[in-house]
Amino acid sequence: MTPARPLKVALLGCGVVGSQVARQMLEGGDEFQARVGRRLDLVGISVRNLAKDRPGIDAALLTDDAAELVARKGIDLVIEVMGGVEPARSLILAAMAGGASVITANKQLLAQDGPTLYEAAAEAGVDLYYEAAVAGAIPIIRPLRESLVGDEVTAVKGIVNGTTNFILDKMTTEGSSFDEVLAEAQRLGYAEDDPTADVEGLDAAAKAAILASLAFHSRVNLDDVDCEGITTVTADDVATAAELGYVIKLLARCALAPDNSISVGVHPTLVPANHPLANVSGAFNAVFIESRHAGQLMFMGPGAGGAPTASAVLGDVITAARNRVRGVAGPGESSYSARPVTPRNLVPSRFYVALSVDDEPGVLAKIAASFARYQVSIQAVRQESEPGRPLGQGARLAILTHAARVGDMKAAVEDLAAMPEVTGGITLMRVEG
Amino acid sequence: MTPARPLKVALLGCGVVGSQVARQMLEGGDEFQARVGRRLDLVGISVRNLAKDRPGIDAALLTDDAAELVARKGIDLVIEVMGGVEPARSLILAAMAGGASVITANKQLLAQDGPTLYEAAAEAGVDLYYEAAVAGAIPIIRPLRESLVGDEVTAVKGIVNGTTNFILDKMTTEGSSFDEVLAEAQRLGYAEDDPTADVEGLDAAAKAAILASLAFHSRVNLDDVDCEGITTVTADDVATAAELGYVIKLLARCALAPDNSISVGVHPTLVPANHPLANVSGAFNAVFIESRHAGQLMFMGPGAGGAPTASAVLGDVITAARNRVRGVAGPGESSYSARPVTPRNLVPSRFYVALSVDDEPGVLAKIAASFARYQVSIQAVRQESEPGRPLGQGARLAILTHAARVGDMKAAVEDLAAMPEVTGGITLMRVEG
Repeated sequence: MTPARPLKVALLGCGVVGSQVARQMLEGGDEFQARVGRRLDLVGISVRNLAKDRPGIDAALLTDDAAELVARKGIDLVIEVMGGVEPARSLILAAMAGGASVITANKQLLAQDGPTLYEAAAEAGVDLYYEAAVAGAIPIIRPLRESLVGDEVTAVKGIVNGTTNFILDKMTTEGSSFDEVLAEAQRLGYAEDDPTADVEGLDAAAKAAILASLAFHSRVNLDDVDCEGITTVTADDVATAAELGYVIKLLARCALAPDNSISVGVHPTLVPANHPLANVSGAFNAVFIESRHAGQLMFMGPGAGGAPTASAVLGDVITAARNRVRGVAGPGESSYSARPVTPRNLVPSRFYVALSVDDEPGVLAKIAASFARYQVSIQAVRQESEPGRPLGQGARLAILTHAARVGDMKAAVEDLAAMPEVTGGITLMRVEG
Repeated sequence: MTPARPLKVALLGCGVVGSQVARQMLEGGDEFQARVGRRLDLVGISVRNLAKDRPGIDAALLTDDAAELVARKGIDLVIEVMGGVEPARSLILAAMAGGASVITANKQLLAQDGPTLYEAAAEAGVDLYYEAAVAGAIPIIRPLRESLVGDEVTAVKGIVNGTTNFILDKMTTEGSSFDEVLAEAQRLGYAEDDPTADVEGLDAAAKAAILASLAFHSRVNLDDVDCEGITTVTADDVATAAELGYVIKLLARCALAPDNSISVGVHPTLVPANHPLANVSGAFNAVFIESRHAGQLMFMGPGAGGAPTASAVLGDVITAARNRVRGVAGPGESSYSARPVTPRNLVPSRFYVALSVDDEPGVLAKIAASFARYQVSIQAVRQESEPGRPLGQGARLAILTHAARVGDMKAAVEDLAAMPEVTGGITLMRVEG
């Protein structure tokens, strides 16, 4: 009896993640065959630079013509770990049009143009899997798509960027400044030479858009995400937060509002020190899901790194391969809810407001009255002498508010800035819980 | 165009979990139809006692003839939440023989006779899903089956029984005795009138067998699980563990040995206070998975309760329903590895040994020499005066060992018991980490 033909796999990209995918596919050949029922044959790897030395990778597999690789006859699975919107999008669409299932880690592409790909996958009757796009090794995409699909998810809150979590964690444990820790992170390989995508929150925002789409059965785009990075977080903020019982985290927060709209944001956020998310250290990621019946679930693990991310890719590869062997595809996009996105200024949140003021009687009362005009009410205040000013002259106030609408809070802060008693340094941050 | 016919669903059992399944199916009707593409019709609910009052449940659906319900024409999905080995097994087999996919929460049945069911499902070409059998609402079964299937899992460590975690947690925070806290747990509904299955570790053992089977692609049976409960854990043990920097948890531990055998056990275990599992409180569950490439993953959430467990059932129902609509079944059992189980006495572990001794010079040296005869080496010792004996006469020793084989440790403890200087109260517990 002739053995069933192997499944042909094409790999696009051979960088930090791609090289690990290739290695794990090679290492796991026999195990994967036992799990799938057929051999998986890596038939080609597209790269940008053929001249680069790639130990352990069979040079005969390499090509710099990705389009030709994808167009080869009989490709069953295409793994895209190149990143970037183009040419990845065109290659993925070509792969699916040619009948291949696709496994990708491309968060930016999915957050900016996911629906184009989801519709193409449904049209072609193939799988499009993307576990590796969010939270590295932690299974979170498949649980949202196929485990929590019998429940109503009401919120997803996550630490989904390892670079910023490493930085904030170090600022917290060492009392260092952002610039000092960024330099150390770059030295240690936790931050890129150009760290913009991570420290400005853009990476986390792409992941938030994907998580929100899945959690709320809707289409949430990168543009829908209210995004702030961590570059303005100071050592002072970190210390004050700790005194107040909080830890500052870059939080990706997706929530269902009572009016059925979806709010999605990425912000440096004060998280209560006893919240499970407060204790996520270093480059780890964690995703906290609240559901109507399941309650509170937390998933935690390595959020980045070649080998962990590759393991998420391989999980999708095996599942897609098993589907191919049985001649089926898994369930596709579910966006029937089509919920609108909450206008950013209407999103409610608690806030932390820190500012420098003249140490005069009545200043706090004036601030509270100003806040009240915008329905912002104060929950707690902490006052300290301002460093660098003579005792009794300057004070640094740290205010925690009750829930207020973002627009109202921002307007209140503008009024603050105009007050003569306010001498500067107004920090505004969100508070969770 | 005539609408596609609804999928017919039969529910076996209407207790704590079953009543919530029925309620959530009713509440979620429209959402589920949108997610599946067809209406889900609950056509019957089998119960033992027709006379019992069941608010919110349509009495017309109730029957006390489960076999007849399962045998009805055109049943697509059968949900089994009755528990117990029979008649659940016969009903599940009949359901699958009749072409229905099955969703179950029955950990004891799966742990004792899972393979019979897996083979029947494969034979009939239907799905057998059981997320609700382990760790309540936390998605862990599907991640093991379909997300981590591209990696090599090397260990699964979990707190998978809410009753015992509630009890041990209370003993830790209050300093109370086991009996006191058990009574409180029963009053609060965290423990049954007959708490044996929980406090003797049998419930956790069934879950450990299931987790080990999935993690290591083998068949692990309830009988393979080395199981100890928490009834002998004392307030003293809890306090001493805390002084040593540990928290006592009922740990289900499944690990791959270097010789490729599988060790599976459930034991009260000293867990380092800074381990993520140490901070799982109350009735929560948590499962910690170690994989070759993914690294360390943790999943945490409500481990029990009607609504959370029902949400896990419903996740399986929706996924099985989507498969039915597309005329397919998902991947079935993967047990090709057929790894053997490590003989219990050969399993390595660190240990905690506590004992009462005469406070004489040379006692510790004698104990250490005795241990050495069995290749048991001491890592740390703590000595305190024994309460109730005059100062200087009796001492309570708490010893932490390095890794030793279970059989060697037990033989060493037997020798201890025979020593004249050892006055009694020998406690032996495993240590993690």
